[in-house]
Amino acid sequence: MTTLDEYAHTLLPAIENDLIATVNLVDSQAFPELHHMLAYHLGWEIPNWKAGKSGKRFRPLLLLLSNIAAGGDWEKAVPAASAVELVHNFSLIHDDIQDNSPLRRGRPSVWKLWGIPQAINAGDAMFSLAFLSMHNLNNTLDNHITLQASKTLQAACLHLTQGQYLDISYETIGNIVQDEYWLMVKGKTAALISACCEIGALIAESERQKQKAFENFGKTLGMAFQVQDDLLGIWGEAALTGKSTESDLVSGKKSLPVLYGLAQKKHFAKRWTSGRIIESEAAEIAQILENEGAKKYAEDLVIQLTDQAINQLEETSPQEPAGNVLKNLAMQLCGRKA
Amino acid sequence: MTTLDEYAHTLLPAIENDLIATVNLVDSQAFPELHHMLAYHLGWEIPNWKAGKSGKRFRPLLLLLSNIAAGGDWEKAVPAASAVELVHNFSLIHDDIQDNSPLRRGRPSVWKLWGIPQAINAGDAMFSLAFLSMHNLNNTLDNHITLQASKTLQAACLHLTQGQYLDISYETIGNIVQDEYWLMVKGKTAALISACCEIGALIAESERQKQKAFENFGKTLGMAFQVQDDLLGIWGEAALTGKSTESDLVSGKKSLPVLYGLAQKKHFAKRWTSGRIIESEAAEIAQILENEGAKKYAEDLVIQLTDQAINQLEETSPQEPAGNVLKNLAMQLCGRKA
Repeated sequence: MTTLDEYAHTLLPAIENDLIATVNLVDSQAFPELHHMLAYHLGWEIPNWKAGKSGKRFRPLLLLLSNIAAGGDWEKAVPAASAVELVHNFSLIHDDIQDNSPLRRGRPSVWKLWGIPQAINAGDAMFSLAFLSMHNLNNTLDNHITLQASKTLQAACLHLTQGQYLDISYETIGNIVQDEYWLMVKGKTAALISACCEIGALIAESERQKQKAFENFGKTLGMAFQVQDDLLGIWGEAALTGKSTESDLVSGKKSLPVLYGLAQKKHFAKRWTSGRIIESEAAEIAQILENEGAKKYAEDLVIQLTDQAINQLEETSPQEPAGNVLKNLAMQLCGRKA
Repeated sequence: MTTLDEYAHTLLPAIENDLIATVNLVDSQAFPELHHMLAYHLGWEIPNWKAGKSGKRFRPLLLLLSNIAAGGDWEKAVPAASAVELVHNFSLIHDDIQDNSPLRRGRPSVWKLWGIPQAINAGDAMFSLAFLSMHNLNNTLDNHITLQASKTLQAACLHLTQGQYLDISYETIGNIVQDEYWLMVKGKTAALISACCEIGALIAESERQKQKAFENFGKTLGMAFQVQDDLLGIWGEAALTGKSTESDLVSGKKSLPVLYGLAQKKHFAKRWTSGRIIESEAAEIAQILENEGAKKYAEDLVIQLTDQAINQLEETSPQEPAGNVLKNLAMQLCGRKA
C-alpha cells in the first residue's frame, strides 16, 4: 500500500466490521429500537431506513495511520479505532439535541426520529460501547497499554465536555475574544483528534516522547481542521446556498471569521450586532465579511496551522509510506491539495 | 468498627473527599459553571447555592463494605467507590431530563437551572469523571484489576442504558408483563448495584467464584431495592401526601404493584385504563390497589428477595464484622429492621 486510497481501501472495511461487532453488544432481539438508533446514526441500513451517509471515519483512519507511521501493526489497533469513532458519534447524537439540529448527514437526526429522552440514552449507550471496544485491545496487547489508551481517550472525553460547555455558554454571551475561541476549540475539536494520533503511537509501543510528538501533531491538525470547518460554515457551497446546511451566519455561531469580522468594527460588525441574520441575507453578508478580510485571514491561518502540523508529524520520524499518507490525509482534511 | 454507623462514619468522609478531588479535575477557574453544575448535583455548597441533600452514597458504601467483607483493604477501593457514585449521578442528571423532573432531592434539577443542553453535557462530563476516577485504582493495584474493574463498570453502564431504553419505551406501551418489568429492572437498577458488589470483591483480589457470588448478591439486592422503591412510590408518605414527590400512580409509572393490580382486572385496572390519575385521587386509588392485594404482594416479594440476597451474601463467607454490617445495610435498603 502506498497511497491514501489504497490504505483506506484496506483499513475502512476493518473499522466498519469492528464497529458493527461492537454495536452488536446491544442485543438487537431484546432491545431492537436501541440497536436501530445506534445503527441508524452510524449510517447503516436498518428496517425502515436505507443506509445513509456514515461520516468519513476520518478519526479512526487517523488513528490507524498514526499507528502504522509509528511502526505498529494496525490490526491490533482496530478496537481503539472503533472507540474513537464511537466517541465522536456519541458526541454528535448529544450535539444534535443541544443545537436543536433536525438533520445529520442529510437524514433526520436521532432525537428527531426517536425523541430527546431516547436520543440522550442512545448517546450514553454509544459512549459505553466506545470504551468496551477499547478494552478489546487487551486481546492482543499488554494491560498497561490498554489501560493507558482508555485513560487517554477518557481524558479527551472530559476535554470534549469542557469545550462543549464553552460552546453552549458562548451562545448567550455578547462577544468572545480569540483566546476564548481557542480554549473552546482545543476541547471540542482538537482533544479527540490529538487523542487519535497519540493512541495510535501508544499502541505501536512508541516511547513516550514519540507519543507526545504525535499528540502535538494531532492538536495542531485539530485546530487547522476547525478553522477550515469554520470557513466551510460560511463560504462553503452548502452554507452559501442554504440548501442542505444552515450558514453559521444564520445560526449565529461565533466562529473564527465572525470574531475577526467583529474585531474590524466595520459593516459586518454593525450588521451582526443589529440582530439575527436570515437565510436570504447569508450570501451577501458572507461577501461583506470576505471584503473585510476575514476569509483571507482564516485561510492563511489554516495554511499556517497545517504546515505546523506537518512539521510536527515529521518530528515523529514516521515510517514511510504511511507518514506520507498521513500527511496527505491531514492536507485533505484542511481543504488543501496533497 | 463493628456497626454500620461506625463504618459509615469512617468510610463516608473518605468517599466524599475522593469525589471532591475527582470533580476538581474540571478546572473551576476555566470552566466555573460546569464545575458548579457537578458540585451542585452532588449536593455540595457552591456560590449562589447552599449545600443540599447529597443522596445516601449507598452504592459506594456497598462497594467498600463488599471489599472489606471479601478481605480487602478498603482504602485501595475508594477510587472505585467514587466511580460508581459518579455513574449513578450521571444517570440521574440525564434521567431528570428524560423524565421532565423539575426536582431532585428537594432542589431544582440541573436541567431546570442550567437548561437541557448544559445538563446533557454535565452528565457526560460526570460519566468521564467516573472512569477517570476508576483509573486511579492503578496507583495501588495491578493493571489487570484496574482494567477489569473499569470493564465491569462499563458493562454495567451499557446495561443501564438498555434498562433506561425499556423504561422510556414502556411509557408509550399500553401494558407490559412482569418479564418485561424484570428485564428493565435488571438493567436500570440491579446492574449497577451488582457491579458495586462484584468490583468490591474484585479489588479485594478474591477469586473469580467469590466475585461472582458477590455479583449475585448485588443483583438480587438490586431487585429487592427496586420493588421497595416501587412500594414507596405509591404508599410512601411523600407519595400519599403528594407533598415532595409525585405518586407513581400520577406519573403513570408501570411499577410492580401497578402490574399486579392490572393483572387482577378489578377496580384498579378499570380506573388505570380509563385515563390519567390526578394527584387528589392518588391516596384513594392507592387504597384500592392495596385492597386488591398489590401492596402485600410487593411486600412479600421484597422480603423474599432480601432473604435470598442475604443467603447469597452468606455464600461468599464474608469476613466479620463487615459481613454482618453489609447484611444490615441490605436490610435497611429494603425497608427492613436489621
